[in-house]
Amino acid sequence: MSVTPRPPAELSTPYPVVDVDVLDRNVRAMAASAAARGLALRPHAKTHKCVQIARRQREAGAKGLTVATIGEAEVFAEAGFTDLFVAYPVWASPARARRLRALAEHASLRIGVDSPEGAVLLADAVRGADVELLVEIDSGHHRSGVRPESAGEVALAAARHGAQVGGVFTFPGHGYTPGRRDEAAADEATALEQAAAALTAVAIEARVRSGGSTPTAAVADPRGLTEMRPGVYVFNDAQQVELGGCGWPDVALTIAATVVSRSGSRVILDAGSKVLGADQPAWATGGGRLPDHPDARVTALSEHHATVVFPAGGPTPRLGEVVRVAPNHVCAAVNLADELVVVSGGREVDRWAVAARGANS
Amino acid sequence: MSVTPRPPAELSTPYPVVDVDVLDRNVRAMAASAAARGLALRPHAKTHKCVQIARRQREAGAKGLTVATIGEAEVFAEAGFTDLFVAYPVWASPARARRLRALAEHASLRIGVDSPEGAVLLADAVRGADVELLVEIDSGHHRSGVRPESAGEVALAAARHGAQVGGVFTFPGHGYTPGRRDEAAADEATALEQAAAALTAVAIEARVRSGGSTPTAAVADPRGLTEMRPGVYVFNDAQQVELGGCGWPDVALTIAATVVSRSGSRVILDAGSKVLGADQPAWATGGGRLPDHPDARVTALSEHHATVVFPAGGPTPRLGEVVRVAPNHVCAAVNLADELVVVSGGREVDRWAVAARGANS
Repeated sequence: MSVTPRPPAELSTPYPVVDVDVLDRNVRAMAASAAARGLALRPHAKTHKCVQIARRQREAGAKGLTVATIGEAEVFAEAGFTDLFVAYPVWASPARARRLRALAEHASLRIGVDSPEGAVLLADAVRGADVELLVEIDSGHHRSGVRPESAGEVALAAARHGAQVGGVFTFPGHGYTPGRRDEAAADEATALEQAAAALTAVAIEARVRSGGSTPTAAVADPRGLTEMRPGVYVFNDAQQVELGGCGWPDVALTIAATVVSRSGSRVILDAGSKVLGADQPAWATGGGRLPDHPDARVTALSEHHATVVFPAGGPTPRLGEVVRVAPNHVCAAVNLADELVVVSGGREVDRWAVAARGANS
Repeated sequence: MSVTPRPPAELSTPYPVVDVDVLDRNVRAMAASAAARGLALRPHAKTHKCVQIARRQREAGAKGLTVATIGEAEVFAEAGFTDLFVAYPVWASPARARRLRALAEHASLRIGVDSPEGAVLLADAVRGADVELLVEIDSGHHRSGVRPESAGEVALAAARHGAQVGGVFTFPGHGYTPGRRDEAAADEATALEQAAAALTAVAIEARVRSGGSTPTAAVADPRGLTEMRPGVYVFNDAQQVELGGCGWPDVALTIAATVVSRSGSRVILDAGSKVLGADQPAWATGGGRLPDHPDARVTALSEHHATVVFPAGGPTPRLGEVVRVAPNHVCAAVNLADELVVVSGGREVDRWAVAARGANS
């Protein structure tokens, strides 16, 4: 059972706390896991949006960063990161085209694409710049991405309009379902191999075959992938614990929250969806978890309230007590915060700005 | 069918757009509705977190503002609002006590309380300052708040420690369920009357009997209430439309989003949960709605993707097209944005800072 960090005297709950020792252990473990299988590691920075954490990932051997938006890329380029992958099917509107060209003066860019129309627009936007395109494919999550056998068509449209094509990528998001991790990782490897073959068939080399994700990272298959892009692993969260991928001691970010109201074994905390985020998959036990009270359940979240039910007859935190809440989905929680309170051994050691908070376009 | 505002050339989607003409109509209509029933209107500013909108509410006759946190109160006090109600059971930790005392030098404050312990702490924190306490009661939403018959006990604890007690308040949140609006409004009025009687029984006058909410506002009962605190009505959102409280022409805030991927009648927009918020009650049709495509359904949201399914055989937006998305819960969406693009007649006329964005503690 962890010691709840004492809130610094000038802070009012709710606020996010990062245990830097847990964070560093997570960063090293993923780097070692990727290296052991000969996979490049390109962590997804949308999780933390923090320059200090990206530097730690780079020092541990990350090849470059993945980001979700041009806005995130701008923040990390400004901070000196020169190898950035926008893993998203970017539609190069005039405003985005200008931003991409400006970015490419400071960093080597990879940009996602999943349609011939998008490829042509991107090719025009980045002509002559240090940018290569990666074709997004759908490996079973059914979000963006073309079918693997259609990747050649997109790559060819890009190449014929003068763009560099570096390979293919996918996000095996169906691994975010209990029991589907291994299936999703296998789908990912198969789909990337098929897509690479589709590029070969149009005489384009798929040098990069890039996959997800924190749930599937432990079983990502180096026969199908050349790199992986997990994000959540730096912090972990209630979802990762409930999926079975880690335990409470691996959760590096929690929200410090105060018990503001009590009624029997039901308490109200001052951390609601405006701090924890509202993500709640159908299989989750609730709106987050209390690592120091694993049997408690967050039965409802509103903007400034978490309703937490404790086991009847057991101990229940008293009014005014500060407890730790692990959000379901840490990426959402971080994007709601301006800074993270960094602790080591239960004492505050630093504050980190969430530099790319809100950089979602 | 509304005209989708053209994105200003320098903006990339996704971003929030406010139609100021719709907003002003909503502001005036709620003010007129409250005035017609002799109810004071104290709008909840957590919805918009915007100084410009709070000023419009004041000009239309709002008596003061409601906020959810001390942080929001600080922002609006700084902007010159001098009558603020923190409608939340504030636990006056040392840090919060200092902030409350500083705030009380700039504004008349009302603070919520729902326990004798919290009342004693607050009474000590604000002794001698221009602050009165309101006892929160549970009128059926079962979140914070004491039972109406217990309100006297809390009020007495506050009064005995020298605090001013102004009355009672509640949030009839169970009105956010299809078909329960009238029941929730009746519960609200009954509970406020019971709680007022409980205060009378301990010789404390419940001068203020304050209720919610946008869904129940149209039927808030002046026999039970003296004021109401709706928030969402300034913008409305997909939830309010699906609850039947308003129509699409009443929705003032939407997210401008680009079609970035297409597969048959399924499209992917670049507005995900980091822009729309992830709130999705069980009865909602999906993760938001497209006001200009009422038959389309947002079947999934991830951080940067909305999956939208259009009716088979009907028109589907083309790649690169900009569409409008109404978030399910506009309070969450606004808290994710740094500024709002303000339009009138489809043309940009202003930008408003979300001044209290992130001020959630």
